[in-house]
Amino acid sequence: MPGQPELTFWFEFASTYSYPAAARIEGLAAAAGVRLHWRPFLLGPLFAQAGLTDSPFNAYPVKGAYMWRDLARICTALDLPLQRPGSFPRNGLHAARIATAAFEAGTAWAPDFVRAVYRANFAEDREIAEPAVLAALLDGLGQPSDRWLAAAERPEIKASLRAATEEAAARGLFGAPSFTTGAVAETELFWGNDRLEPALAWARARALEPTVSPAARSATDPG
Amino acid sequence: MPGQPELTFWFEFASTYSYPAAARIEGLAAAAGVRLHWRPFLLGPLFAQAGLTDSPFNAYPVKGAYMWRDLARICTALDLPLQRPGSFPRNGLHAARIATAAFEAGTAWAPDFVRAVYRANFAEDREIAEPAVLAALLDGLGQPSDRWLAAAERPEIKASLRAATEEAAARGLFGAPSFTTGAVAETELFWGNDRLEPALAWARARALEPTVSPAARSATDPG
Repeated sequence: MPGQPELTFWFEFASTYSYPAAARIEGLAAAAGVRLHWRPFLLGPLFAQAGLTDSPFNAYPVKGAYMWRDLARICTALDLPLQRPGSFPRNGLHAARIATAAFEAGTAWAPDFVRAVYRANFAEDREIAEPAVLAALLDGLGQPSDRWLAAAERPEIKASLRAATEEAAARGLFGAPSFTTGAVAETELFWGNDRLEPALAWARARALEPTVSPAARSATDPG
Repeated sequence: MPGQPELTFWFEFASTYSYPAAARIEGLAAAAGVRLHWRPFLLGPLFAQAGLTDSPFNAYPVKGAYMWRDLARICTALDLPLQRPGSFPRNGLHAARIATAAFEAGTAWAPDFVRAVYRANFAEDREIAEPAVLAALLDGLGQPSDRWLAAAERPEIKASLRAATEEAAARGLFGAPSFTTGAVAETELFWGNDRLEPALAWARARALEPTVSPAARSATDPG
């Protein structure tokens, strides 16, 4: 029996194109009837494994200049505010831990926190690495910031974020935003804000298809 | 008075995502009423300037694995044949020179030649660096291959391809396919097969807008 379509959204707070993706995904997933799983993770360890010590947008300035212009066009089309941050990339570790804690606790406001962090970083040029900034964002959502800043430092939350980053690597992620369906060994990976719609369509198509054996499925897969 | 919208399509024969872009662009541009300029160029010199000695898809195998899967999904959706080439990236120098000669001569079959080279490289696993392969493609289009292989080696054609690559760099290109509008100093750049539709929309919007001063234009630009 076909189940509800599901899609996992992998995001990193330093990632520029994750900003419009985070703004768009909830509405698009609801419209498509796809259940979302929000997974904060860290790109730093994945970049380090690939031998990168800085954002590719800094390492290749020509590509970086294009990215900021492209992002500006995208944000204009979405009516999303954008201000190039005075510092890039900002360290999203604490924000990712808070998001991890909020999602694991099943809070309804966790997606709002994610969007608030992106807005702070990419529209308000605020230093999201600073606990005071994150506390202000939590306060703005009516949440007890002291409690959540403390929750984010619990060993099990740190371990959970590490595990998410390891799972991201195991699924073949190398950038953000990314979207995946399926178990780790059968990951279907989509990378980039512009792949959000194809990822949702894929999730729907796979959930609605009749159950087939893995062998039959791979024979009909594209590629 | 507003003129006809125009868009320049920059392509490199080793570029995987240029394959679906080359297959799609003529129909989409015609439907949008946009006049196309086909510009073969070489990515190698641009990569070398950025310190890259191989395709990023080879240098970062995790990213390369994703690209081939993503390309397979895209080609399946377009009903374009795809076979991962036994050698990647292939040297597109001679093919780019032939394309340069064919476009500069104003031939009607030049776009067909471009698509045939991409199909040979990415659907038929043929060695497009070899003059014999390129001759067979020209023969298949009913063109005198001896004449065009010779034309491609003329000093002015070599110089023209070098100039195209230099213009690509001056316009801020760093990958293919790319799409540009405007004079070099006012380049609006779009990168990637997935930016073809936004680039066409941009070209239309700019051609149809009332004439404004450069100052007024930049004030209303996104970003």
